[in-house]
Amino acid sequence: MDQILLRPIGVVHSPYKEAKGIPIQGRFKDDVEARIELKEKYAKGLLDLDAFSHAIILYYFHKSKREDIEGTPFLEDEKHGIFALRSPHRPNHLGCSIVKISKIQGNNLYFTQVDILDSTPVLDIKPYVKYFDSREEAICGWLDKHFKNGRIPEKTIIK
Amino acid sequence: MDQILLRPIGVVHSPYKEAKGIPIQGRFKDDVEARIELKEKYAKGLLDLDAFSHAIILYYFHKSKREDIEGTPFLEDEKHGIFALRSPHRPNHLGCSIVKISKIQGNNLYFTQVDILDSTPVLDIKPYVKYFDSREEAICGWLDKHFKNGRIPEKTIIK
Repeated sequence: MDQILLRPIGVVHSPYKEAKGIPIQGRFKDDVEARIELKEKYAKGLLDLDAFSHAIILYYFHKSKREDIEGTPFLEDEKHGIFALRSPHRPNHLGCSIVKISKIQGNNLYFTQVDILDSTPVLDIKPYVKYFDSREEAICGWLDKHFKNGRIPEKTIIK
Repeated sequence: MDQILLRPIGVVHSPYKEAKGIPIQGRFKDDVEARIELKEKYAKGLLDLDAFSHAIILYYFHKSKREDIEGTPFLEDEKHGIFALRSPHRPNHLGCSIVKISKIQGNNLYFTQVDILDSTPVLDIKPYVKYFDSREEAICGWLDKHFKNGRIPEKTIIK
């Protein structure tokens, strides 16, 4: 399989029109709301998602123009492999964010914990299932030192 | 953006050649190992990922031949919207699994907690970062009743 063709299922309407002011992950700025507008034909696919508190959004980093193999994360000056980073400048430009569901209305999913730019093409929505997806015991490489003893680093909002 | 073209970065070599015997999520069968063989040019992207215990694998459900809008999950007989399910038979056929990293050798990532079929095309690898990705407080809709009081349901392995 050499190529895979995907079609966006919808689009994100977000107050973040550019990277400035966006949190590196939505959890670090809780009070901002965005919405996914699904194509009408997918509206029925949202049935019962409102009984979940969180969803996994898969999307396309449409603003990224390059594919790095190594990169320097926002939180520090050390270089790491692109697969040890969450940078948008990656092969295939796929993004994955966990968001908090506010409400569902028709073909619209409203959510908080937003770290996604306006006009981002959405590829999939999955229910977040803590029994599969939560790993409190995880060891997190170069990130652990930045979050030591429950601390939140200062550089979690892009300036 | 009407279409998005992706190119697999590698392929999964898994002992699961068919759905039979595979866990619904890798966490439910801990002792099976698989590997991702990346294309050579991406090997450098794995730098420092071995300091993480878990990774998020994004991949293409290459065996699915249909796109459902609603479906019945393996764990019960109730119908739900496809975006409230983790079924492979979904728009764009994107899969997302959290796996446990065993070791990295050259362009190979060895892992356990496998729920991915052999020959699956891999689209991305991301480090699992508990500070972003872990949500012990999540409410999990139709799944909560199946995992009540820390119980693991019987039907977690596909027969």
